[in-house]
Amino acid sequence: MTAVRLSLMLESSKIPKDSSLSRREIRRDKRRTRIRDAAFELFERQGFEATTIDQIAALADVGKGTFFNYFPTKQNVLTDYYARLSAGFINNAENIKTGNAQKRFAKLFHSIETTLRREGQMVDVLYPEVFKQPKLIALDEDIEERVSVLYAGWLDADKDKKKLRDDFDTALAVRLIFDIWSATLRNWIEADKSFSLAEELNRKFELLFTGLRAKNF
Amino acid sequence: MTAVRLSLMLESSKIPKDSSLSRREIRRDKRRTRIRDAAFELFERQGFEATTIDQIAALADVGKGTFFNYFPTKQNVLTDYYARLSAGFINNAENIKTGNAQKRFAKLFHSIETTLRREGQMVDVLYPEVFKQPKLIALDEDIEERVSVLYAGWLDADKDKKKLRDDFDTALAVRLIFDIWSATLRNWIEADKSFSLAEELNRKFELLFTGLRAKNF
Repeated sequence: MTAVRLSLMLESSKIPKDSSLSRREIRRDKRRTRIRDAAFELFERQGFEATTIDQIAALADVGKGTFFNYFPTKQNVLTDYYARLSAGFINNAENIKTGNAQKRFAKLFHSIETTLRREGQMVDVLYPEVFKQPKLIALDEDIEERVSVLYAGWLDADKDKKKLRDDFDTALAVRLIFDIWSATLRNWIEADKSFSLAEELNRKFELLFTGLRAKNF
Repeated sequence: MTAVRLSLMLESSKIPKDSSLSRREIRRDKRRTRIRDAAFELFERQGFEATTIDQIAALADVGKGTFFNYFPTKQNVLTDYYARLSAGFINNAENIKTGNAQKRFAKLFHSIETTLRREGQMVDVLYPEVFKQPKLIALDEDIEERVSVLYAGWLDADKDKKKLRDDFDTALAVRLIFDIWSATLRNWIEADKSFSLAEELNRKFELLFTGLRAKNF
């Protein structure tokens, strides 16, 4: 599981994969991956709190000083992970160019669920920390801000095409969409992912969009 | 602030206030209030984690053993508080007997905001613990279950009267209502209660109910 996840993360990272990378850069990159891999394994096995930098360095077979060359703190391993994960989500969302707003949300939620299931237990490690660690909280707010603009664009495009009523406040609807998203995600994590996140969201969005649709549609 | 809050809590508690209380019971009740009052003062001042039972007992001017006669653990002070607070909310909700569903929600949210503002900082102490402490989590689930039944009844009554469409899944709509409630409450707490909780909820509910209303209304 870990191997699949990490290789996919590297694919979505911004490191160019052409031959312009020097051997030194490749070596750095591999070592960084090994340290992160060790950290993930320990976080999943014994929890984030209980894991020490000494343990991560030992499992990655590097000195403690080497760990600090790559990550200033243990928290940074998670911040880095969340940054990569969310860059993937934002990228996915930005690449959805067709369909009405409701269909775009359905596509996005499907791809998010696929990613979250592939990431496995690391999602359960990350989730509670997003509400605790200041850097993760700040990152989460940044993501919400960026995605809000995108969602508002989807709704406004549908308003322009008269596919949605034009008498509702787009910003309010976006807040509502985030409410549904965040509460449903929480329930999904708490229910050990025993139902389909995307399907539950789609059902709720169907109910919401019924109210947003123009009368003649 | 504390005095107002506690007197109101006693009003809503189940302790009968008639003369049938023995002097011993009255004394017990007063001491319990004094211990809880001391605990609240310390929780608000220095946080729940940092407060020790020794400090609570000292401030309440009782022995540590006396504390344990009233509360088996420090956590129980919060569980007891949340149980009383939520009994008040459920009681309020059950007493809303008139108006359509949307108006009932508006009434309920108004009374909840009034209570939460009156309770002041204790709400900020309680809120994060509801996601951490197993007993508070269990209590929260109980409350959600009880209130769900009530909300479903409000929606179904409106369906029967053709004030709402009858082709949506009531249980799904109730889940959506909880999503909006819990996410908005979180935002409100995080924003230091700088906006009106009830107004923000009412605006979101107006958008939701537009979709739930029958076409001929």
